[in-house]
Amino acid sequence: MPANDIYMKRACEIAFTMMGKTSPNPAVGAVIVKNNNIIGEGGTGKYGGDHAEVTAIKNARKRGNDIEGASIYVSLEPCSHHGKTPPCTDAIIKSGIKKVFTPLLDPNPLVSGNGIRQLADAGIEIKIMHKHFSSASDLVRGFKKYILRNRPFIINKCAMTLDGRIAATSGDSKWISNTFTRLFVHKLRAKVDAVIIGKNTFMKDNPMLNVRFDEFDDDTKKFFSVNTPKISGRENFFLEKLLKDDIPDYREPLRVMIGIPEIIPAGSNFFRDNNYIIIAGENEYRDAVNMNPELKSFYEGLNIAVKRFNSNDESIGFVMETLKDRGVMTALLEGGGTVNGSFFNAGEIDQFIYVIAPKVLGSGISPINGERTEKISDSLILRDISTVMIDNNMLINGYKEEYNFEMM
Amino acid sequence: MPANDIYMKRACEIAFTMMGKTSPNPAVGAVIVKNNNIIGEGGTGKYGGDHAEVTAIKNARKRGNDIEGASIYVSLEPCSHHGKTPPCTDAIIKSGIKKVFTPLLDPNPLVSGNGIRQLADAGIEIKIMHKHFSSASDLVRGFKKYILRNRPFIINKCAMTLDGRIAATSGDSKWISNTFTRLFVHKLRAKVDAVIIGKNTFMKDNPMLNVRFDEFDDDTKKFFSVNTPKISGRENFFLEKLLKDDIPDYREPLRVMIGIPEIIPAGSNFFRDNNYIIIAGENEYRDAVNMNPELKSFYEGLNIAVKRFNSNDESIGFVMETLKDRGVMTALLEGGGTVNGSFFNAGEIDQFIYVIAPKVLGSGISPINGERTEKISDSLILRDISTVMIDNNMLINGYKEEYNFEMM
Repeated sequence: MPANDIYMKRACEIAFTMMGKTSPNPAVGAVIVKNNNIIGEGGTGKYGGDHAEVTAIKNARKRGNDIEGASIYVSLEPCSHHGKTPPCTDAIIKSGIKKVFTPLLDPNPLVSGNGIRQLADAGIEIKIMHKHFSSASDLVRGFKKYILRNRPFIINKCAMTLDGRIAATSGDSKWISNTFTRLFVHKLRAKVDAVIIGKNTFMKDNPMLNVRFDEFDDDTKKFFSVNTPKISGRENFFLEKLLKDDIPDYREPLRVMIGIPEIIPAGSNFFRDNNYIIIAGENEYRDAVNMNPELKSFYEGLNIAVKRFNSNDESIGFVMETLKDRGVMTALLEGGGTVNGSFFNAGEIDQFIYVIAPKVLGSGISPINGERTEKISDSLILRDISTVMIDNNMLINGYKEEYNFEMM
Repeated sequence: MPANDIYMKRACEIAFTMMGKTSPNPAVGAVIVKNNNIIGEGGTGKYGGDHAEVTAIKNARKRGNDIEGASIYVSLEPCSHHGKTPPCTDAIIKSGIKKVFTPLLDPNPLVSGNGIRQLADAGIEIKIMHKHFSSASDLVRGFKKYILRNRPFIINKCAMTLDGRIAATSGDSKWISNTFTRLFVHKLRAKVDAVIIGKNTFMKDNPMLNVRFDEFDDDTKKFFSVNTPKISGRENFFLEKLLKDDIPDYREPLRVMIGIPEIIPAGSNFFRDNNYIIIAGENEYRDAVNMNPELKSFYEGLNIAVKRFNSNDESIGFVMETLKDRGVMTALLEGGGTVNGSFFNAGEIDQFIYVIAPKVLGSGISPINGERTEKISDSLILRDISTVMIDNNMLINGYKEEYNFEMM
């Protein structure tokens, strides 16, 4: 691999390690190179902290390196506007860096193209690395939706049988997928800001919804490094890293419940700490607490967002708004058929990660229980499809939209 | 590849070309080698005709070759019993062949091991080529079930969306899969003895159920030779050949309808020639013809098998018996949810070929509409899983049972 590609790949790798910790900023990586040596590197810090470029510059200086005349490889166009921090373009210009390599314009309309123009105007040489466009874009899909549409990016994950069932008729769903794909889901949770379920899943499974790598035995943990599953279809840097890398360092995702349970079972894992929110309709809330006055006092002490709405789209719109206000840029939807159906019908599922196990149930619950569809031609056609066999389970990854943000 | 392996692979390739034309005999290939040259080869003829070994011996002689001292490579143990033709072991012994290579014992209990023993007793050297066990067994799975259980081998094929639907709520199903996987299904039809549907599919689609390679444009026909889709999971010789090979030569499968349509639409493709059968329950038949006397005279002129039965298992048992009596060794089940459910609940689906398209419907019809299942642990766990991406469609192939017939 040419040296330039190695540096940019490293920048993308750093960006990946930061995913899930920077929201609602994009996770970006930067590598500073001088005389064919990496003299500094870094990733975007948590929201309000330094962006990748500044982290890398500080890192180079801390290591006692002279940046004058160096090149910087950044996985996303440097920002040119004052947000929580000053523009990265200013920091780059002041640092003495003479060359900027990047594969991707910032989808933020306040920046897009301006970052590069400001750098060029200051006499800095710009290289657009088209070759890394695909890898880099896989890391900022969530940010793109958040910045353009002001809503979180929703990833719907489910495990289903070959005949398309996520649970038996009774609701039993343990386990459809194998232990390796379950570990994969925990890695995925480590990379998102929130995990969403419906009240039915809460009642049925009493789920923790956190990252629990410790639950897996050593053979399972070793699986991905020993086997390196091979991706077919479109290459996907996010998926590749998620499969291959250990994730030693992450932030617990926010737990999100849609709907009001009529009973709160004792010892519910969902309420074990303050990192959760319940989002519900006003009528549903009123009915529940009217029926059960004890529930009223219980709910009044909780993190709960309630609003009146008249349609499914309004209801999901309220969920999206509430999550956006909490700084949730990406959320993993782990609902049953009903909740998945609501998000799907509102057009808010952006990415599908479906694991298909080689089991046949013959009956049971479908992954998405949405509105009646009349025609196959009405179906949502997914883009950028990748598949990977994880032992005997088949994982399919696809997106509602191509990442089609214009390059230069 | 060592020469021995090339010869055995060739024998398996010949066997594949004969699949769908030999039932209820297994499709077998044989290659005769002398002084490192192939001097004769052949495959099993249609039922009652020569077996592969005899075809190969005749082929060698026709080409003016002296067989004395030659080796024969056969994809299945030579038969040792009198069926429609004399034992192949006799023909081999008489021919002067001195060495027999085979990867697989005959699952027919009348033969299994005896063929090899007779040859060894006659002073012929036997080599079991374990390396080709898997390829060879993929070609005789149908025969194995037929000879051991006296029932046809059922392959359930369907195309479904990522959310597990084979049709929209209205019943519309055109098209879920892409044109390449549809061509693949026509190849599959060319390799089975029968295609099964239910009366609902008959009423809804007026299907031809035949092999129609002509319907595909040149780009589609070229797809598999240009792209050679890569199989993940277990290697599967049958699947590999089916993907890669053109099938210039085949027998039209028998068309099988389960159930009695209450109306026969004019111009039904199903009845266009005599190569069909309707299989139905006595009560269902009686109700239909009582309701409509015209239907009675219509049905009396048809190929129809009617029997009284009291359970789903009895009903599918009657289907299996009827098909077996017609010499059907392998059948492709292309039913909707109801018919697939009946076969599944009776435990008679042996192979699943499911194509998953990257589309999401949000509602619709599930591939198998069987009896209520309470637990995931009650599901059928498939074996020998292979997957292959065909453009953007994912094909998953699995079996109810491993091919576990004992080798030596």
